[in-house]
Amino acid sequence: MQTPWEYRYAHRASKMGSSVIRELLKLTDQPDIISFAGGLPAPEVFPVKKFQEACNYVLENLGAKALQYGATEGYTPLREMIARHTGRYSVQVTADNIMITSGSQQALDFIGRLFLNRGDYIVVESPTYLGALQAWNAYGPQYISVPSDENGMVVDELEDALRIGPKFIYVLPNFQNPSGTTLSLERRKKLVEIADRYGVPIIEDDPYGQLRYDGDHLPSVVSLDSEYRNESNGQYSGNVIYMSTFSKLLAPGLRLAWVIAPPEVIRRLVMTKQAADLHTSTFNQIVAHEVAKGGFLDEHVKVIRATYKERRDVMLETMDEIWPSEVRWTRPEGGMFLWGILPEKMDAAELFKSAIEKKVAFVPGAAFHPTGGGHNTMRINFSYTDPDATREGITRLGLLLREEVFKDAKKKYLYD
Amino acid sequence: MQTPWEYRYAHRASKMGSSVIRELLKLTDQPDIISFAGGLPAPEVFPVKKFQEACNYVLENLGAKALQYGATEGYTPLREMIARHTGRYSVQVTADNIMITSGSQQALDFIGRLFLNRGDYIVVESPTYLGALQAWNAYGPQYISVPSDENGMVVDELEDALRIGPKFIYVLPNFQNPSGTTLSLERRKKLVEIADRYGVPIIEDDPYGQLRYDGDHLPSVVSLDSEYRNESNGQYSGNVIYMSTFSKLLAPGLRLAWVIAPPEVIRRLVMTKQAADLHTSTFNQIVAHEVAKGGFLDEHVKVIRATYKERRDVMLETMDEIWPSEVRWTRPEGGMFLWGILPEKMDAAELFKSAIEKKVAFVPGAAFHPTGGGHNTMRINFSYTDPDATREGITRLGLLLREEVFKDAKKKYLYD
Repeated sequence: MQTPWEYRYAHRASKMGSSVIRELLKLTDQPDIISFAGGLPAPEVFPVKKFQEACNYVLENLGAKALQYGATEGYTPLREMIARHTGRYSVQVTADNIMITSGSQQALDFIGRLFLNRGDYIVVESPTYLGALQAWNAYGPQYISVPSDENGMVVDELEDALRIGPKFIYVLPNFQNPSGTTLSLERRKKLVEIADRYGVPIIEDDPYGQLRYDGDHLPSVVSLDSEYRNESNGQYSGNVIYMSTFSKLLAPGLRLAWVIAPPEVIRRLVMTKQAADLHTSTFNQIVAHEVAKGGFLDEHVKVIRATYKERRDVMLETMDEIWPSEVRWTRPEGGMFLWGILPEKMDAAELFKSAIEKKVAFVPGAAFHPTGGGHNTMRINFSYTDPDATREGITRLGLLLREEVFKDAKKKYLYD
Repeated sequence: MQTPWEYRYAHRASKMGSSVIRELLKLTDQPDIISFAGGLPAPEVFPVKKFQEACNYVLENLGAKALQYGATEGYTPLREMIARHTGRYSVQVTADNIMITSGSQQALDFIGRLFLNRGDYIVVESPTYLGALQAWNAYGPQYISVPSDENGMVVDELEDALRIGPKFIYVLPNFQNPSGTTLSLERRKKLVEIADRYGVPIIEDDPYGQLRYDGDHLPSVVSLDSEYRNESNGQYSGNVIYMSTFSKLLAPGLRLAWVIAPPEVIRRLVMTKQAADLHTSTFNQIVAHEVAKGGFLDEHVKVIRATYKERRDVMLETMDEIWPSEVRWTRPEGGMFLWGILPEKMDAAELFKSAIEKKVAFVPGAAFHPTGGGHNTMRINFSYTDPDATREGITRLGLLLREEVFKDAKKKYLYD
């Protein structure tokens, strides 16, 4: 007889769906489509040679260690290196503040698993990162959206949300995915103060912080929180759980990211990880440490910045030149994405279908809005596509937009 | 003010504890202790040179792919290779039956996440694998223990357990961790039949199947299930979720394992993994494929078998020679562990303390019994320690056991 699998799954399985983006990517993964839909780093900037040297060094000198089981919290020299790196940005942390995860997605999942009961509230920006929603949905939370503008989350509207009693606040302060906007310094400070007043932790997701192409670096929320508390014992014990990743600085195929949190939270996250996958690949951690030590990433990030800056500039220039004035878009100071806002009457999901016919793709923005809205928004990636293809693809999109806006105007005329 | 973290955690966090073994390992991780407590492969058998060649080949020829994001279900050539390998053992499967995970621990966690509601019953062998209990405890299940003997789970007692209505049955048929016993062919067949009759899926955990040192290979439960169903379309769609790993054949530091299941279950597991960590390291998968293709693992596994067989033999010889007849132990035909059973009156946790003083360690067995019992049992690893140290450590343990058994006998005399 057949196993009745459909009746065997847990309640939470009904909350699990495939990511809208991953499903879209299957449509757009054809060689003749110029796709701005993904969120991939440019493979041209992967430091393959350096990585190969590191693999050889590690296998010749640390082979038995690199191929063996390792500690759940991560490879100590790597954690210490991250602690020193973090210290340069004015948060004093020790290795006890740091756990290595298999990509930031795993950190998001663990935070959900550690904190969320069914029905708990989470405060998010609107729009917000889809991967976080996907990680958390299995735990059955409810979302409270706080609106964003060109300076990130409108923190003035946060207090009402906190009075609902959420488990935590989720923010991506730098070059947000999907919107490309950056939370202003003033708002960061206010966020730290309000969150502290209500005793609600902040989850700071910062995959792109190092990828700034214009303007000045802004202090992270975790560093402002540390400052606000006047911490002086060299260890962080505040209100923020911070996460960042090697995916954008080195290579996503390694699945290496890290969490910074008070040691008591790290201890809980370590127990979570022990049950979930024992530890992150020892080999990848030791190789990443070997690649990164001695300041290589400081140099390498300049190459990445130059590459992505050029692509962003080409994209913005082409948009300025060709896109109709009825469409608005953000001008990110860094990161990998910009955000388009169509006239209210237009539907980005419809536009997506026409775009695919013209062999160009983006992500319609509705999915980034867990409490609804955003039907007229679109996420556009600028890191993956080279400048010539970017110009071509953005031109195609622009011509399509002109048509659609014109149709829209005609419609208005017909029915008014 | 300080964040009240203690009041922020989810209910399930109270079910998460650090593994007893991992805590023990901290005690035993001193260079002068001969430890049979861990479950580590011998680093001497890691194919470091081969691995280095594969890294170089992959980075020179497939660098951009290996360092980029990859598919959640895993690297297709690796899944196809596993399908061919599985086919050799008489279960016809396709790549759609296979998902790659970051170690078997992750597969256990995903199975818990996909299937378990709080309070669900799981049938386990007694004793059973601690990592599975740790993975599942966060989901709040209840355990039903079926006793085991030298031929594995006493399947005759399974039917009563199935009438309780469990979500699934968990078995480790080959050289079980912790007991070292192997489920007999007759019992395997009966297990398949009874599970089918009650519609209860079987989770078959098989990390050591290839590590057989004596006797004949027995068909896996999944292959017997496929046979029982007379499947003929080349794809498995039965009642078993099977898992195995590269940790014991290649190296655990890579964190590479795989699940075989009906395609509809694989699709659900892929959604689970997408939310949990996107995918397993692309680089590690491509390198493992490069190492394994062309039959290398078939040759390499012979080296592993020879090494572990020698260690097991030295251990058993020393036990036969020195250990008192009041203590019993299993004689595993493969794997990495054997199981000691002390006289009922003795406590293995007490013995552990005395053993540490003699600079030798093992794992007291109580933790492997989720429904209680096993205070007089012990798990002893034979894969990690070299033959000389094994002889020395097992001798020390034997002398200690003689003392304890003698004390025990004296006590009886005093109070009788």
